[in-house]
Amino acid sequence: MELYELVLDFFYKNKGKYIPLKEIASNLNISESEIIKTLQKLEEQEYKIDFAEDLGYRLEETPNLLLPYEIKRDLKTDFIGKKIYYFSEVDSTNDVAKELAENGAENGTLVIAQTQRRGKGRDGKKWISPLGGVWMSIILRPTIKPEKAPQLTLVTGVAVAETLKKQTGLNVKIKWPNDILIDDKKVCGILTEAHAKYNTLEYVIVGIGIDVNMDMELFPQELRRGATSIKEELEMEVYYVELVQRFLERFEELYLEFNADQFPEILRKWRKYSKTIGSYVEVHKRLGKIVRGEAVGINKQGALILELDDGTLRKVFSGECIHLN
Amino acid sequence: MELYELVLDFFYKNKGKYIPLKEIASNLNISESEIIKTLQKLEEQEYKIDFAEDLGYRLEETPNLLLPYEIKRDLKTDFIGKKIYYFSEVDSTNDVAKELAENGAENGTLVIAQTQRRGKGRDGKKWISPLGGVWMSIILRPTIKPEKAPQLTLVTGVAVAETLKKQTGLNVKIKWPNDILIDDKKVCGILTEAHAKYNTLEYVIVGIGIDVNMDMELFPQELRRGATSIKEELEMEVYYVELVQRFLERFEELYLEFNADQFPEILRKWRKYSKTIGSYVEVHKRLGKIVRGEAVGINKQGALILELDDGTLRKVFSGECIHLN
Repeated sequence: MELYELVLDFFYKNKGKYIPLKEIASNLNISESEIIKTLQKLEEQEYKIDFAEDLGYRLEETPNLLLPYEIKRDLKTDFIGKKIYYFSEVDSTNDVAKELAENGAENGTLVIAQTQRRGKGRDGKKWISPLGGVWMSIILRPTIKPEKAPQLTLVTGVAVAETLKKQTGLNVKIKWPNDILIDDKKVCGILTEAHAKYNTLEYVIVGIGIDVNMDMELFPQELRRGATSIKEELEMEVYYVELVQRFLERFEELYLEFNADQFPEILRKWRKYSKTIGSYVEVHKRLGKIVRGEAVGINKQGALILELDDGTLRKVFSGECIHLN
Repeated sequence: MELYELVLDFFYKNKGKYIPLKEIASNLNISESEIIKTLQKLEEQEYKIDFAEDLGYRLEETPNLLLPYEIKRDLKTDFIGKKIYYFSEVDSTNDVAKELAENGAENGTLVIAQTQRRGKGRDGKKWISPLGGVWMSIILRPTIKPEKAPQLTLVTGVAVAETLKKQTGLNVKIKWPNDILIDDKKVCGILTEAHAKYNTLEYVIVGIGIDVNMDMELFPQELRRGATSIKEELEMEVYYVELVQRFLERFEELYLEFNADQFPEILRKWRKYSKTIGSYVEVHKRLGKIVRGEAVGINKQGALILELDDGTLRKVFSGECIHLN
């Protein structure tokens, strides 16, 4: 544990109280000058610490930043997010996670960033990742067959949708296969990348990007119409750490259900949030192919079932889905 | 308005109060002896009326029976249940409704019975209709094409499911196409019969049978396992009139939505209650044909979409559905 973590721990244990410098120093068994240096460092990190002449120091305010120490504090998971790699800026959390996974990082390791320079969307698309979002990737080592890895996209979608619904009360929906919407606007994207060797799954990277506190005016004009942020919808700032903690906890629960062969149950939850099912849609597949029809269901592989205009049924495994009604 | 209705109206307007006989008589402009006769008649109908020497009469308790006067009182609909035909015993409410419809009964007319001698289920099956249930049929004259009439079964299913959920808080589900379940047990069946002439829909009879207050021991042994009643689940008697009123009100709302071309929205509600979608099922069709597969969705005609074991997709328009998992 680092010095600043020890000091913060002590402050949180004595929440709301002023503590004399002498008492902090003796309790942590650290010199008073070291404590003062640490307090200065914390203030640089935007922790607000109050000093009162006769009373000592008190932690006034925790900064609204994705600080790993704050995420781990009070995080009620067994393995998801127990190890966190934090970056204020990174090319892509999925790429970092992949590097770490190749080097043996364990199941549940979290890579999280304040901004991404080269955030990745589906099909190699760029994913705008400015300050104000949560950009994170989870390394998973599930013991499943490679063909089941795409199901983790749906599991993650349910975890995000349920967390956002619970934390914000907004009208959260899922657009097949992996966009989370508020009303009609995208607030979160999910990118699952599986790595298999000789038909054995080595690891899966689940990347999640959530538009939390950004002002939509900072978004490129062409993306603004179809996108939103939680702040935009709630008209107030959201505390990042709490959102991430609740997500990681719900994700762990659902991931355990998934591993216990309860994917059909998770799919039931997915259907409840689905905006796609029951809509008339157009799916843009690779090479410019387009399928159009009524989305009538989803099967247990996560394929969308379309009823085309001539009444025939068709399974669609991937693509960009556009709701036409 | 009949005499007993006038007297009841007066009692309900003076709820909880004792009223001298003289005052009742003068207010209703009816002789005191007529009032006394009416009060006796009401007591025969199981209304409990208290008499106090110096104070007069007071309505103590309304019987828990499907009395049309009670259903109409406080019923907040515009046309559903405005006209009610009540029978303590009848062969089949659907058959009576059909007779009435053929003779010009208007849109929204309700036929309701305490017991049916020859209740009808799907495919000509017998439907057990003892005392304790609600057996009713609604005459509808929608201006839709005949092929859309089966959608009314789904509309009715949603109205029943939402009403039961709201009134009882139980775990209400719909089994495709038209059974309402509590957990896994059937509590309500719906039978829609459409009558068209020269490709024009003349009227539709929507029959609804709900197991409300029956003790399941009175059910034939072979039906007991898969069936339940609301009383059985709540472990208390339910007030029939309130249940029917809330159902009629919700039904009218949904029926108006249906007529306003909002069936896709109703189908979304149906999906939320569906226990079938996501289950592995067997559908028994006519002539002993059986289709087996995973129920992956429902289309806007109300056909169930199955994914067979070989991965092919299949639409099923009718049949008896059995959930295998």
